[in-house]
Amino acid sequence: MPDAIQCLEIGSTEFNMFFKRLRERAEIGDGPAGSIHAELLEKARAGGDSVLLMFAEQFFEGLHPGIVATVERVIQRVQAQGDGALCNLSRLFDGYPLTPPNIRVSPKELDALAAQADAATLELCRTQVIPRLMRFHEKQRQESWQLDEQGGSVGIRVQPLQRVALYVPGGKAFYPSSLMMSAIPAKVAGVKEIAVFTPPAAVDKTPLLAGLCKELGITEIYRVGGAQAVAAAALGTEKIARVDKVVGPGNQFVATAKRMLNGRVAIDSFAGPSEVVILFDASATPAHVAADLLAQAEHDEMAAAVGVTDSAEAAQAVAAEINLQLAGLPREAICRRSLESFGGIVVAPSMGFALRFVDTLAAEHVEVITGDAEKHAGQIRNAGAIFIGPFAPEAFGDYMAGPNHVLPTAGTARFASALGVGDFLRHVSIIRGSEAMLRPHVATIAALARIEGLEAHARSVEARF
Amino acid sequence: MPDAIQCLEIGSTEFNMFFKRLRERAEIGDGPAGSIHAELLEKARAGGDSVLLMFAEQFFEGLHPGIVATVERVIQRVQAQGDGALCNLSRLFDGYPLTPPNIRVSPKELDALAAQADAATLELCRTQVIPRLMRFHEKQRQESWQLDEQGGSVGIRVQPLQRVALYVPGGKAFYPSSLMMSAIPAKVAGVKEIAVFTPPAAVDKTPLLAGLCKELGITEIYRVGGAQAVAAAALGTEKIARVDKVVGPGNQFVATAKRMLNGRVAIDSFAGPSEVVILFDASATPAHVAADLLAQAEHDEMAAAVGVTDSAEAAQAVAAEINLQLAGLPREAICRRSLESFGGIVVAPSMGFALRFVDTLAAEHVEVITGDAEKHAGQIRNAGAIFIGPFAPEAFGDYMAGPNHVLPTAGTARFASALGVGDFLRHVSIIRGSEAMLRPHVATIAALARIEGLEAHARSVEARF
Repeated sequence: MPDAIQCLEIGSTEFNMFFKRLRERAEIGDGPAGSIHAELLEKARAGGDSVLLMFAEQFFEGLHPGIVATVERVIQRVQAQGDGALCNLSRLFDGYPLTPPNIRVSPKELDALAAQADAATLELCRTQVIPRLMRFHEKQRQESWQLDEQGGSVGIRVQPLQRVALYVPGGKAFYPSSLMMSAIPAKVAGVKEIAVFTPPAAVDKTPLLAGLCKELGITEIYRVGGAQAVAAAALGTEKIARVDKVVGPGNQFVATAKRMLNGRVAIDSFAGPSEVVILFDASATPAHVAADLLAQAEHDEMAAAVGVTDSAEAAQAVAAEINLQLAGLPREAICRRSLESFGGIVVAPSMGFALRFVDTLAAEHVEVITGDAEKHAGQIRNAGAIFIGPFAPEAFGDYMAGPNHVLPTAGTARFASALGVGDFLRHVSIIRGSEAMLRPHVATIAALARIEGLEAHARSVEARF
Repeated sequence: MPDAIQCLEIGSTEFNMFFKRLRERAEIGDGPAGSIHAELLEKARAGGDSVLLMFAEQFFEGLHPGIVATVERVIQRVQAQGDGALCNLSRLFDGYPLTPPNIRVSPKELDALAAQADAATLELCRTQVIPRLMRFHEKQRQESWQLDEQGGSVGIRVQPLQRVALYVPGGKAFYPSSLMMSAIPAKVAGVKEIAVFTPPAAVDKTPLLAGLCKELGITEIYRVGGAQAVAAAALGTEKIARVDKVVGPGNQFVATAKRMLNGRVAIDSFAGPSEVVILFDASATPAHVAADLLAQAEHDEMAAAVGVTDSAEAAQAVAAEINLQLAGLPREAICRRSLESFGGIVVAPSMGFALRFVDTLAAEHVEVITGDAEKHAGQIRNAGAIFIGPFAPEAFGDYMAGPNHVLPTAGTARFASALGVGDFLRHVSIIRGSEAMLRPHVATIAALARIEGLEAHARSVEARF
């Protein structure tokens, strides 16, 4: 049986093909809007790379005319018919007999469901996970400030958003860690109203959701999922007050609705499939590197798990470990397909070369397991999160190291950051005038306004004196 | 001749019509993506309000199939043909004989142009404006931090974006203040490479642009405007390295290109037409309120200038002042049309009522000129910027109070903030592991991973011990 992951020497034909595929994966995955999608899909078709084509088709499904038209109608119906539309759409899409009175989970239902949640899991979240996440995110708090000047001042008033929606996918796909990672920065920011939207069946089938919501102090849960949840959150209905921001992952209908309503409501980033790049050298324990690559590969077939090293022997040892560890993993088949499509161990002629390659990928997660990990991590600029040393597996960050696990994917770490408290704050500029403060600037303001052809601007300051 | 601005009592039929129009203006102006536009346009058509229809048509022009198709072709050509496409498109759209060697303004040309710039204006910017803007934005700097723990740590490394593009509209529309407001937060953030893109004719016709760029330490200027500028910045060409973020206002082609390439590159917000809401009472000098409303109205016909007061007499006095001050303003006609469409002085039965109305509008600029301005300003939550007291005209903030004048419009102040240093920074999460730090959490991580069905995640931490 061939190795589950291939070792690729930088500069080899195989490496070039792999690198090209990774770059095209990123180009597809960064989710540019509109018809650029069609172009990339066309390109994937023309390129004859069946893996990329599958990736592009899966990724762009949300922009297929069928889905766009459906989401458009869903938004229109929610706007026109409010709660009635939510009930009808739930019957249609979820097969759930939603009625206006049970759109929102009642306090009694919440208590009853929370009581059914696995107590041990809740206890772990309450005592182990939430405090660590809170402690980290509290460091991200921002203070209002002002610069005083001549009886006046200029400054920034930092305010939390008033009301946000957390979208929580339903069914098997309920991840307690994702709920905590979305809710905690909002809570730390001071958002007063946090409303959870989740497909109706999920509420009853996943009591852990209700239990964890209660644990997080969230008592507003709606049995509304899909595009109609985003529409209801963004536009409001009789029973649901509109929110200022919608965050959280969802299927293509949810993602398309977020895209379409962006601007009328704020949204978080568009997340692509997950990625890890592990920089390692001969000092790394191959079993650790292999375990971390597999942890990434098990996410889904679109995940990318890439090792980068300056040691051909270490690369071979990691590849051998992967073969060993794969056997018996519950998601072995997914791991194999993911590694085959977007997995590889890249062998660079030097650590400098390896570092440049890592920076080029600008991956969501970057682990550095080298003899000089601190120095090497300092040389990596482009990454969503950097995990330094042999005792910083990505899974630590996924659950409870402290930093948020919602991270920029598909190379967008070049310009984007992890979800954080700042995403739930807004800044109001404050200009507190005084006569002594304004007077010295009247001539300058008037001069600049006239240069820009804005006479009334000039007069508005001159009128004061 | 009737008053140029109408006074409207809250609750009156005229007020209700005005409020409805303002709300629909915001709904249109917040720029939701995709086909929601078509729906709003349809609504404006059906509503029979010719002002709103004009507004919607003007605002959505960028999403007309013709413009979208054009921008799409422009992006494809820039992607396929690089600099050659830029030259051809410049001949086609600008009538300018662009060739690859003069795409970038040479150091010699920059010096020669800068020498022609008006020295007095440059002096004002250098000595009066830039230092004030720098001082304010320097307060927005962010520091990296870490929480130490058992020989490891978690934290955030704050980094500037590597490379950004500032789009600067050309011709008469060159606003020195806008260039400073876009460039200064980028500079303070520490962005090393700032590239200015502007239509080719603008470079030679507006030497102030070159002069001010030099003043700001910007030496990379491209004679490229329109959608092709955004495409070149986002995708890169032979002569132009791709950037991480594109900021700055532009025409519909520019805005459409930004929308389409968003995700592959970061962009700033979509700015709608400008707005001011002035809360005033009988203590305000009517001439000041009138002057500030006119300063807003002169921007363009789509601008909204709204007064809100608890005093019918004060409202009448401001309306009378507007009539007086209008005469002889160079942009009198624009002011009249803007005031007629989206201007009004709203008379509320109480200050509490007035404050709630102001908060509902969530305007870009809010001035508070009342006897208790500090208290009233504290009660307003939704605003891009709040100007407090009689000596804080909006024009002070437009040019040199300190805060950025790029502000959220169309009610998006509910969730968005002024452009700032943070828009040019990104946060890399750092997880620095140690054996002692990770060990206590292995069981919890493994338990949560297994609850989420991610066995390889669990094993990746267990493998360390």
